[in-house]
Amino acid sequence: MSHSDPLPTVRLRPKAEARAIRHGFPWVYGDELVTDRRTKAMTPGTIALLEDAERRPMGVVAVNPQSKLIARMLDSDPAAVIDQSWLAARLQTALDLRARLFDAPFYRLIHAEADGLPGVVIDRFGDAAVIQPNAAWAEHLIGPLSAALQEVTGVKTVVKNASGRARGLEGLDGEDETTLLAGALEGPVEVSMNGAIYMADLLGGQKTGLFYDQRPNHAFAARFAKGAKVLDVFSHVGGFGLAALAAGASEVTCIDGSQPALDLAAAGAKAMGQSALTLRKGDAFAQMEALAKEGATFDMVICDPPAFAPNRKALEAGLRAYERVARLAAPLVAPGGVLGLCSCSHAADLTKFRNASARGIGRGGRRAQMLHTGFAGPDHPQLPQLAESGYLKALFFRLNP
Amino acid sequence: MSHSDPLPTVRLRPKAEARAIRHGFPWVYGDELVTDRRTKAMTPGTIALLEDAERRPMGVVAVNPQSKLIARMLDSDPAAVIDQSWLAARLQTALDLRARLFDAPFYRLIHAEADGLPGVVIDRFGDAAVIQPNAAWAEHLIGPLSAALQEVTGVKTVVKNASGRARGLEGLDGEDETTLLAGALEGPVEVSMNGAIYMADLLGGQKTGLFYDQRPNHAFAARFAKGAKVLDVFSHVGGFGLAALAAGASEVTCIDGSQPALDLAAAGAKAMGQSALTLRKGDAFAQMEALAKEGATFDMVICDPPAFAPNRKALEAGLRAYERVARLAAPLVAPGGVLGLCSCSHAADLTKFRNASARGIGRGGRRAQMLHTGFAGPDHPQLPQLAESGYLKALFFRLNP
Repeated sequence: MSHSDPLPTVRLRPKAEARAIRHGFPWVYGDELVTDRRTKAMTPGTIALLEDAERRPMGVVAVNPQSKLIARMLDSDPAAVIDQSWLAARLQTALDLRARLFDAPFYRLIHAEADGLPGVVIDRFGDAAVIQPNAAWAEHLIGPLSAALQEVTGVKTVVKNASGRARGLEGLDGEDETTLLAGALEGPVEVSMNGAIYMADLLGGQKTGLFYDQRPNHAFAARFAKGAKVLDVFSHVGGFGLAALAAGASEVTCIDGSQPALDLAAAGAKAMGQSALTLRKGDAFAQMEALAKEGATFDMVICDPPAFAPNRKALEAGLRAYERVARLAAPLVAPGGVLGLCSCSHAADLTKFRNASARGIGRGGRRAQMLHTGFAGPDHPQLPQLAESGYLKALFFRLNP
Repeated sequence: MSHSDPLPTVRLRPKAEARAIRHGFPWVYGDELVTDRRTKAMTPGTIALLEDAERRPMGVVAVNPQSKLIARMLDSDPAAVIDQSWLAARLQTALDLRARLFDAPFYRLIHAEADGLPGVVIDRFGDAAVIQPNAAWAEHLIGPLSAALQEVTGVKTVVKNASGRARGLEGLDGEDETTLLAGALEGPVEVSMNGAIYMADLLGGQKTGLFYDQRPNHAFAARFAKGAKVLDVFSHVGGFGLAALAAGASEVTCIDGSQPALDLAAAGAKAMGQSALTLRKGDAFAQMEALAKEGATFDMVICDPPAFAPNRKALEAGLRAYERVARLAAPLVAPGGVLGLCSCSHAADLTKFRNASARGIGRGGRRAQMLHTGFAGPDHPQLPQLAESGYLKALFFRLNP
C-alpha cells in the first residue's frame, strides 16, 4: 500500500466507546461500527481510517467484518502508513525492551496488542524467529512483516506458525502446520534459559515448540531444587524439570502425554550433561494416581497443564479439572515440600484458580502456605486496559511439614 | 502454663463456620463464639480449648474478648501445649523455608498466621531479630517466644517493636517505641540484599527499619538500572534506589519526608562505595511537581508510598492519592522508560490499584505497557484462606517511547 492511496474509511456509531479508544483501548466491537454494505464487503485485514461518529479521524485500523473485533487499532496517528518501515519501527521498540531485559536473544519479541501489533505473536530463538499471525491484517502483510523482522533483529530464519486458536475467530484457516518464510532450519534449536538447555522444535508446532512465558516461574521453582527430588507433571519439553536439574535437583521425573515432547526433554538433559531424568509417558491424571499407589513422594511437584478453561463455557469443567490436579498432586508432596500449580486459562481468573487449587489441596488431605503468585514474564507485556485477561498464573504452595 | 493445668474452654455457636475452621481458616469472629460471662471476663491472650457447638474439641486457641477476632487458632491438635518448645517447633518450620530460599540470614522469619503464629511478625537481621507481637497472646508469651527464637536461630539480640497498627484492635498499647529483650545493638545493622547494602536502625521504629517484602520488586526494577538515571520517590532508607545503584544505575535521586531515613540511605550508599546518590527531603507530591517544573526526566521512576488506603473507609481517598502519584510521576519518565508504582494498602485490591494507576498515567499524558505485577516475597507467605488480603502490589509499566 503506497502513501498516495487514500485509505477506505470506517465510522463509529454514536454509542461507541470513542473515549476508551482515544485513551488506548485497542478494539472496536462489531456493534460499535457503522456496518454499511461497503464495510461489510471489506476483505478481512483491510487497513482503514477510523472516524468517530462526528467524522473526526481517530487513527488507522485493521478491519475484519468476519470478526467480533471488527477493527483493531494499529496507530492513533491517522496519517500513519502501515508498511515495512512502520512494522520495523514497532519491532525496534519491542526489541529495545527485550535487549534491556535479557542477556541472550531468546524471548517473546512481540506480544500482540501490548507491543503495538494487534493479533501478532513473534518468538525469537537466536537467529530464528516464529511469527504467529493470528489476525487477518498480519496474514496479508506477512511478507513485509517477515522482511522487517529480519531487518531489525538480524534473524536469518523466519517460520510462520498458523496453529493459533485465535485464527478461527478471524476467519483464517486454522492450519495445523508451519511454513518456512525465510532461511533454513535443521533440527531443534538449543535455547538457554535459567541455566538449562531446552530443545525447541520450531517446525513441529505447539506440541514441541517452547513457551517463554513460564521463565520467571521456572526460576522461582529452581530456588527449591538443590538436592531435591522433583516431579514435573504436564512437562512438555521439560520446562520446570530441566530448570530444576540445572539448579541442582538430585532427580527429576517428567510426565507428559506427548512422546516427541518427552524426547526433546531428554535431548535437553543430554545437552546439559545431566542423567538424573526419568520420563513417564501417559495421561497425567493416571500417572499421578499410579505414583500415589507406588507410595512415591517428591520434594517438589509442579503441574503445568494445558488450558482447561480456555473460554467461559469451559469454566466450570475447567475449574473442576484444576481442583483434581491439585487433589492428585498434593499427596505426592513430601512433608514441608513445595507444590507449584499453573493455569494458562483466560477464563479462570486468579481468585477462581487459587480457590480451586486450595480446595484440591484440602481434599488431597493437606494444608498449605501460599509462597508466591507468578505471571508471564515481562517479554509478555499487557495493555493495562486488557490486563484482566492475563492468562498465565503460577501458584506456589508449601505443604505442611 | 504446664501440661497439667486443664485449659479453659470456649465454644462455637451453632451458626459458626466450624467447617471453614476445620479446613484451616484461622479466626473466630466475636459473633461466632458463645460469649458467656466467663468468656467475656477472660484476660486478652488467654490460651483456651475451642469446642464446636456439639462440644467436640477443635483445637487450642488464643482468646481476646476485646478483639473482633475473638479467637485465633494456634493448633488444631486439642492436646497441644503452647510453651517454649511449641514456639520453637513453629520457628524451626519457618526457618527451614527461609534457609532454603536465602543465602544469608536476612529475611522475614515469621509472617503471622501463615507461619502458624497468629498476629506475630519476626524479622531477622543476621544475629539480631525484631519481634512485633501484634496479638495479646504473644505479648503474654514474649519471654518464651524470645527464648525460643534465640534457641532456634542462634540470634543474640532480640528487639520488641510495639508500633504495629494492629495492636490497637487487640486492646494492646500502641507504644511507639522499641525495647531490647536480649543482647545489645550499637547503631544500624548492615543488610545485604540484591547486591545493595541497606542500613536498618532496628531501635528507631518503622520510620528507619527495613522492609523485606519489596525484595523481589527491587530485583525486578534493578533489571532496568544499568546506566540509567533513576528516581526513587518515597524512598525510605533507599529500597529501590540502592538496589538500582548496585545494578549499575548512573545516578539515583531519593525523595523522602524523613531525614533519618534519607541519612540511612546515604550511609548505605557510602558503605557500597557509591557516590551517585542525590537526596531530596520533602513532601513527595511537591517534589515531583518541582522536578516537572525543572524539566527533569528519568529512565526509571519508582513510587513506593505509605498505605494510602489502610482500611475500607480510606479506600476512595486512597485510590485518588494513588492516581495522583501516577499522574505526577508519569511526566518524569523519559520516552520508553519504566514507571514502578507500589501499594501496600490492604483495602486497595490489585484491580482497583491497577485501574487507579492506569488512569493516573493517562491523565499524566502517557500511554503504557504493563510489564510486571509483583507481590511480597516468599518470606511473606499467606494462608490461601486469607490470600485476598495480600497487601503489597508492585506494578511496572513502560511508558510510550
